Amino acid sequence: MKVAYLGPKGSFTHSATQEYFSNAELVSYGSIPACIKAVAQGEIPIGVVPIENTIEGTVNLTLDYLYHKADLAILGELVMPISQQLLMKKDRSVELAKLTKVYSHPQALAQSQEFIAEYLPEARVIATDSTSLAAEMVANSHDDSVAAIGPVACGQEYDLEIVKADIQDISHNKTRFWIISNQANLRNDSESIEKASLCFIMPNNLPGALQKALTAFSWRELNLNKIESRPLKTTLGEYFFLIDIVLEANQLPLLANAMEEIQYLGGQVKQFGCYHVHRIKGL
Amino acid sequence: MKVAYLGPKGSFTHSATQEYFSNAELVSYGSIPACIKAVAQGEIPIGVVPIENTIEGTVNLTLDYLYHKADLAILGELVMPISQQLLMKKDRSVELAKLTKVYSHPQALAQSQEFIAEYLPEARVIATDSTSLAAEMVANSHDDSVAAIGPVACGQEYDLEIVKADIQDISHNKTRFWIISNQANLRNDSESIEKASLCFIMPNNLPGALQKALTAFSWRELNLNKIESRPLKTTLGEYFFLIDIVLEANQLPLLANAMEEIQYLGGQVKQFGCYHVHRIKGL
Repeated sequence: MKVAYLGPKGSFTHSATQEYFSNAELVSYGSIPACIKAVAQGEIPIGVVPIENTIEGTVNLTLDYLYHKADLAILGELVMPISQQLLMKKDRSVELAKLTKVYSHPQALAQSQEFIAEYLPEARVIATDSTSLAAEMVANSHDDSVAAIGPVACGQEYDLEIVKADIQDISHNKTRFWIISNQANLRNDSESIEKASLCFIMPNNLPGALQKALTAFSWRELNLNKIESRPLKTTLGEYFFLIDIVLEANQLPLLANAMEEIQYLGGQVKQFGCYHVHRIKGL
Repeated sequence: MKVAYLGPKGSFTHSATQEYFSNAELVSYGSIPACIKAVAQGEIPIGVVPIENTIEGTVNLTLDYLYHKADLAILGELVMPISQQLLMKKDRSVELAKLTKVYSHPQALAQSQEFIAEYLPEARVIATDSTSLAAEMVANSHDDSVAAIGPVACGQEYDLEIVKADIQDISHNKTRFWIISNQANLRNDSESIEKASLCFIMPNNLPGALQKALTAFSWRELNLNKIESRPLKTTLGEYFFLIDIVLEANQLPLLANAMEEIQYLGGQVKQFGCYHVHRIKGL
């Protein structure tokens, strides 16, 4: 079986995908939209993309692309601890305090802000497309005073040394990944379901529209864990809403019922899926 | 009067601040935290920072910093149309199709994704700390095949030419800015209030906690416009919630009442402010 993931090799998504799909042929994609598109167009049956991080919150690109441009089912969720390493060339002659530049993906930089402020106050912080690209830039640089921030796997991939380990601002940093598919028959059996994610929009002219939609869940005792307003990209103040519901298997008919109620109110619902959460150990 | 803003000169926040505080002495800060900190520590009485954009959504850095690290009041909101320009050196010898690099702030890049994909498919996209820095890099570059994306003011500041105008993906792109202060006596009179923003957290062990909090607003007919879950940065799945309420002046006692109810439920409320929205024209 082939599984698409947000690459390149050595990325956190790669590690999570490898841990869970240990016997699959993994196919790397350079961006979240490219990865989702490959699954939506049926090139690859299954894909893995990040959806949320403890520190940075929702990965908006994943949510927006799944909402606006694809029609896929979530088969499951992977939750993996994330730790960031400060990576430099092995044969360097420069000390930590003399670092001039530090490269990484914006999310990894955001997760290491306090470390950077304390240990690398003089270094220029440069955003890259991925932590792997940051490591590659350091490996190929003629300048010894540069470092990258990224996962252990990423340092191994480019033969870099871990100069400071676990530099992320909080120690229990985790990322959620969604396993997505366009094949509904791959769905989990209903017994193992523990979560549901769906999006909805409500009509503009309905007073208290958001509350009315939320009441459809609350009076059925469907427990909302998270709610997010994302701009519809039409005009400021118009949103679609993502909600995560902590679910028991016997609540599935109630969920279907609540979604029907929202539609009766004039809302539109896009169900992402009801799924199991797989907690995997990090690398 | 001094007003702090997210700089540098030529940024969108600069334009919005200039339009609204036309007689004030404007002081530029290099980052959102630095700008908020200057106001929180009383160095500058008033500050202006971006909070939300039509395309990109909430500016998480502003929200997180105001929630976790500062205790300020929102005095008002500025809403300004945003348009992005493709900027190049005036004396260049290279055509648009031959561009090799395009620099800009990640939000401006995100707002111009479709333009970049269509017109600059070969160009390397490089994220910078600000649109102004992008323009400065182009102005100082020896390479003629580079461009920046940013506002008109930014092109003027660095003597660049607008090669393509209004390249943002949607034409009615707007940004919301908050006017923040640590002086509560500068608050708006209650007559002009049209919006309230506040954050709350709920106890973990309270079933349906989020719904209960939202009900405190809904049965008082306080109209929620937006709700956002932001990770508390403690463990995955724990959030604080930001809500925006569309408010009429006579609803102020009801709002105070709703916040009290949330506290009785064991929640904690942080009120950002009740304020007027100033719609200003862009540059």
